[in-house]
Amino acid sequence: MAKKILFDTDPGVDDATALLFLHKHPEAELVGITTVFGNTDIDRVTRNALYLKERFDVAAPVARGAGRPLVCEPGPLPVLVHGDNGLGNVTIPESIAGDLDPRPAARFIIDTLREHPGEITIVAVGRLTNLAQALAEAPEIAGLAKEVVIMGGAFALSGHNGNVTPVAEANILGDPHAADLVFGAAWPVVAVGLDVTRQVMITPRDLARLHGEGGDAGRFIAEISDHYRRFYSRFGIEGFYCHDASAAALAIDPSLFTTRAGPVRVATEGIVMGQTIQRDNRIPFGPNAWDGVPDQHVCVEVEADRLKALVMGTLLG
Amino acid sequence: MAKKILFDTDPGVDDATALLFLHKHPEAELVGITTVFGNTDIDRVTRNALYLKERFDVAAPVARGAGRPLVCEPGPLPVLVHGDNGLGNVTIPESIAGDLDPRPAARFIIDTLREHPGEITIVAVGRLTNLAQALAEAPEIAGLAKEVVIMGGAFALSGHNGNVTPVAEANILGDPHAADLVFGAAWPVVAVGLDVTRQVMITPRDLARLHGEGGDAGRFIAEISDHYRRFYSRFGIEGFYCHDASAAALAIDPSLFTTRAGPVRVATEGIVMGQTIQRDNRIPFGPNAWDGVPDQHVCVEVEADRLKALVMGTLLG
Repeated sequence: MAKKILFDTDPGVDDATALLFLHKHPEAELVGITTVFGNTDIDRVTRNALYLKERFDVAAPVARGAGRPLVCEPGPLPVLVHGDNGLGNVTIPESIAGDLDPRPAARFIIDTLREHPGEITIVAVGRLTNLAQALAEAPEIAGLAKEVVIMGGAFALSGHNGNVTPVAEANILGDPHAADLVFGAAWPVVAVGLDVTRQVMITPRDLARLHGEGGDAGRFIAEISDHYRRFYSRFGIEGFYCHDASAAALAIDPSLFTTRAGPVRVATEGIVMGQTIQRDNRIPFGPNAWDGVPDQHVCVEVEADRLKALVMGTLLG
Repeated sequence: MAKKILFDTDPGVDDATALLFLHKHPEAELVGITTVFGNTDIDRVTRNALYLKERFDVAAPVARGAGRPLVCEPGPLPVLVHGDNGLGNVTIPESIAGDLDPRPAARFIIDTLREHPGEITIVAVGRLTNLAQALAEAPEIAGLAKEVVIMGGAFALSGHNGNVTPVAEANILGDPHAADLVFGAAWPVVAVGLDVTRQVMITPRDLARLHGEGGDAGRFIAEISDHYRRFYSRFGIEGFYCHDASAAALAIDPSLFTTRAGPVRVATEGIVMGQTIQRDNRIPFGPNAWDGVPDQHVCVEVEADRLKALVMGTLLG
């Protein structure tokens, strides 16, 4: 039976890739797409989600979500990474006639979890604002989700390794208060952070294959990725990291990853704002801010080649 | 020529071991001992330093330093680790007649660096309050130190690895504001953090050798270490980590360690207070709080066996 997946996203170049991967994978059943500000503003990410739905015939409804963080001021839009329109500046219509679900994303999440208790895997690849709002409105939903897979965080498994600051990853820094609530809730969270996503590289050769052999979806991914690839090439990196699709891949095949259990907190102030910290439960501590926070799983290793084969095979197939 | 070493310390069981190591090593010339609150209060650590000076005939003067952190409230005394008297509850006189240098530690540090420009290695194995006060009083001393070797910090080189909280090491957490100033000053700092000190273990067998073959100093180290050892054994650890003596060993033989360069900041607020973060200069970031902070060196690897041989050989020799 296919896994019911609710995809919370801010498309976003690699978001679009992850969405198309889930759309094409036979074991995934997309039951909803909720949007959140992030890679660009909430109007554009929602437009982009509707565009992807229409162009690629995605059945799942799209619900519009949060336009700003719970507490912080929003940061600057990452136009250098995802382009002005969030999809690498590939030309797409200014607005899409496609029907939006009338509910706000948080309400859509609550309703979907209640409709399918114990069956829904949430794959969240943007700021965690919608999930935090849903938890605030209906805390009992934590008991209804099968799993929450997050692309986010940087867990310093071999030194501090943020991507926006030396310690903070963009999705978590974009709404650290929301992330702290989501990691602290009593649902099973798996975090796919930079520790593992930086090990999975989409190369120019992969993009050429997608363009040549991947049909409309493959061509589209190659086109929107060009801007993204050029951002990385400024830093001498050939290709780009497969952030969001890694989280989507985990939802399909968790055996690709090794995880570690322990409570996770998010720093919400000072120079380390947005840092994700999993307590190492093997080290004895006095009373600390991780006490009473449920253990969650953080990815510590990935079989990068096998993950790449899954993602590429699905997109090309 | 022997290296001129100013030892800033809060004895402290492993402080005493490090001090006796430096006292006995032919290439170290102790030019001063400055005390700072930490392993116990400032009265007791100063008394302990004077006791060590008198009992083991240490020529270096002792100057009394800071009794509390720059900004924070002081934390609880670690009596479980170092005992009520800071020296594992081994009986020592309540007060020592030995002469204390009349200057406060910060002034002593300033004067000593000015007297021997470019020649002094500061080995600081406690809170960094004295060093920060010295910098505040005479910022130009940063240009006068040969090197500042710190036992402190936890740099998450294989996951978060504090010892008081999941991210914070005791010496830095004890005065995070002072540590941030010391790392940020334009003198060459080398941090010997938990990443490496946890790899160097003093075993019960080492203690037995010190007791049997190490003369008065060896016997004393074995005696004061008994309480320390029992603290560790609560957690199933046989023996204890060689924190302070590792920093002292680096001052004598830096080839024992591999270091990494990059600016270091210390978190001074929130749940991550006391965390030390070295920016990875290989990752490109936007503007961040590490900009303009000088590169310092952080130990990333240690040749533990060779370090142990140096410390044990010196103490037994």
